[in-house]
Amino acid sequence: MIQRLAIVGVGLLGGSIALAARAHGVARDIVGIGRDRARLDAPLRAGAVDRVTTDLAAGVRDADVVVFSANVLANEQLLAAAWNAVAPSAVVTDVGSTKRGIVAAAERLAVGSPRRFVGSHPMAGSEKSGYAVARADLFQGATVIVTPSDASEPAAVKTVTTFWEALGGRVSALDPDVHDQIVAAISHLPHVAAWALVDAVTRFEPAALGFAARGFKDTTRIAAADPAMWTEILLGNRDAIVAGLAAYRGALGELERLIVAGDRGNIESLLARLKTQRETLA
Amino acid sequence: MIQRLAIVGVGLLGGSIALAARAHGVARDIVGIGRDRARLDAPLRAGAVDRVTTDLAAGVRDADVVVFSANVLANEQLLAAAWNAVAPSAVVTDVGSTKRGIVAAAERLAVGSPRRFVGSHPMAGSEKSGYAVARADLFQGATVIVTPSDASEPAAVKTVTTFWEALGGRVSALDPDVHDQIVAAISHLPHVAAWALVDAVTRFEPAALGFAARGFKDTTRIAAADPAMWTEILLGNRDAIVAGLAAYRGALGELERLIVAGDRGNIESLLARLKTQRETLA
Repeated sequence: MIQRLAIVGVGLLGGSIALAARAHGVARDIVGIGRDRARLDAPLRAGAVDRVTTDLAAGVRDADVVVFSANVLANEQLLAAAWNAVAPSAVVTDVGSTKRGIVAAAERLAVGSPRRFVGSHPMAGSEKSGYAVARADLFQGATVIVTPSDASEPAAVKTVTTFWEALGGRVSALDPDVHDQIVAAISHLPHVAAWALVDAVTRFEPAALGFAARGFKDTTRIAAADPAMWTEILLGNRDAIVAGLAAYRGALGELERLIVAGDRGNIESLLARLKTQRETLA
Repeated sequence: MIQRLAIVGVGLLGGSIALAARAHGVARDIVGIGRDRARLDAPLRAGAVDRVTTDLAAGVRDADVVVFSANVLANEQLLAAAWNAVAPSAVVTDVGSTKRGIVAAAERLAVGSPRRFVGSHPMAGSEKSGYAVARADLFQGATVIVTPSDASEPAAVKTVTTFWEALGGRVSALDPDVHDQIVAAISHLPHVAAWALVDAVTRFEPAALGFAARGFKDTTRIAAADPAMWTEILLGNRDAIVAGLAAYRGALGELERLIVAGDRGNIESLLARLKTQRETLA
C-alpha cells in the first residue's frame, strides 16, 4: 500500500491511474497535479484524487510514488522541475510512449542529486484524451513495459512493476533503446501510415470518403489521435520512426512492383505470408 | 418477387445473398452454382438455396436474375461462359470490387448477343471468406454501388437497384471508371498499406509483434484478407492503385520531412487537419 501517490497530469492516463489505484486500494492518499486548476475539478469531485494542486513541488514533496503522466516532452521538463522536491526515498516513473529521452534525462539529473527513477510505458490508451475518458479498468490486462537501465535500483524496478501489476497490467522489462525501436514499429509507424492514408485519400479522390466502410475506418481510426501529444512522440522517437519508414517504403515498393509486373503467383504468396503473420496476433 | 434467382459462387457474398433473399422473401426459387459440389452441401442443407448444380449453363438457364459472386477474374470468365445460356429477359449482375473490366467484358459480349448486365459492388464483406461466414444481414445498411454504363437498359438498372434494396442495401450509382478510382482510394490502397505495415514491422523489428496492441491490430486487420481474391482485385484495378500509391508515398514523404526537420508547428497542424478529416467519418 502506497501512503501517498502523486500523479502529475490527470488526463486519460493519469486519471485512469488514479481511478485504478483507488479501485484496487493501491494508495491511501492520491494527489492530482496539473497546470490548470479548473481541469482538476472533475477528478477531485469524482473522488479519483483526494487533493489537487497546481504547485508541482508541493504536490510531489511527500509522495512515496510519483507518476509523470503528461505528454512525453512535458514529462521531461516536469521531471527536471520536480526532481529536487521529490523525496530521495520516493520511486518515480512516467507513462510516456518513448523512453530513451526521459531515461537519459533522469540519469543526467541523478548526477549529484540521486533519485530513484524507472521509466514505464503502459500500452493502453485511446485516440481520445482527457480525464473525461479515463477508466478504472484501462490497464486491466494491458501490456506495461518498464525500462530499467544500468543505473536503476532493483528495489525501485520492483516497486514500479508491483504498482502496474496492482493496477491490472502485465509487465515486461525492456532496455529503453529497444523499447523505442519496438514502439516505433508497432505504434508510431502505424500512426504515420494511418495519417498518410487519410491525407492521400483526401487528395487523390475526395469523393471516396463518402464510401468508406469498415476496412478504411479500422485502418485509419488512430489518425484521430491527439495532435499535440503525437507531435511530441514523433519528435521524441524520430530516428527509429525514420528507420521504420524506410522499411515501410521498401515493403510498399515490393508489393507495387509485383502489381505492376502482373506477377499473380508472387502477389498471392506474399499476401498469404502476410495473412499468416497477421493471424499470429489475437 | 423473383421467380428464380441464380447465384454463381456461394461463398461469403453469394451465400449471404441467398440467406438475405430468403429472409426477405425476395426470390421463390434459389439456385446455387459452384465448381465444387461438396462445397454446395452446406448452403443446400441450411435451406439457403433450393437446388445446387456444378453445371453453369443449366444453373442460369431459367433464372430471372443471375448474380455472379465468385472472384473478380472468375466472374469475368464465368460471365462469358454463361452468357448465351442466360435468358434474354433475365437481368445479370455481379458483386466484384472492380467494375471497369467486367462492364467492358459484358459490353463486348452483348455485341451480337444482347443480354441485360448491370455491375454491382456491395461494400460489405470481411477478411474471412466462404459460406461458413455468410449472414442474412450482411447487406443491412451496407452501401451498394451499381455501375450502369451508356449501354445499360434503365429497366435492368431498376431491377438491380430494387434487388439490393430488398436485401437491405443503400444503393448509389457510379460510372464504372469513377467506381474503380474510388475503391482504389477507400479500399485497395488501405489494404496495400496494411499488408506493407505487417511486412515492414516483421522485417524491421520482429519482436515488436509481441507488443501489438489495439492500434496495430485495427490498422492491420484487413491484412488477413483472402490472398487469391485480393490478387485478382489488385491486378484488376492496377492503374488506379498505382496512382493511389503515388499519392500515398507523397503523403508519407511530407510527414517524414516535417519529422526530420523537427517542425513542431507544422506537424501539429497537419495532424490536427487529418484528425478532423478522419472524424468526418462515423
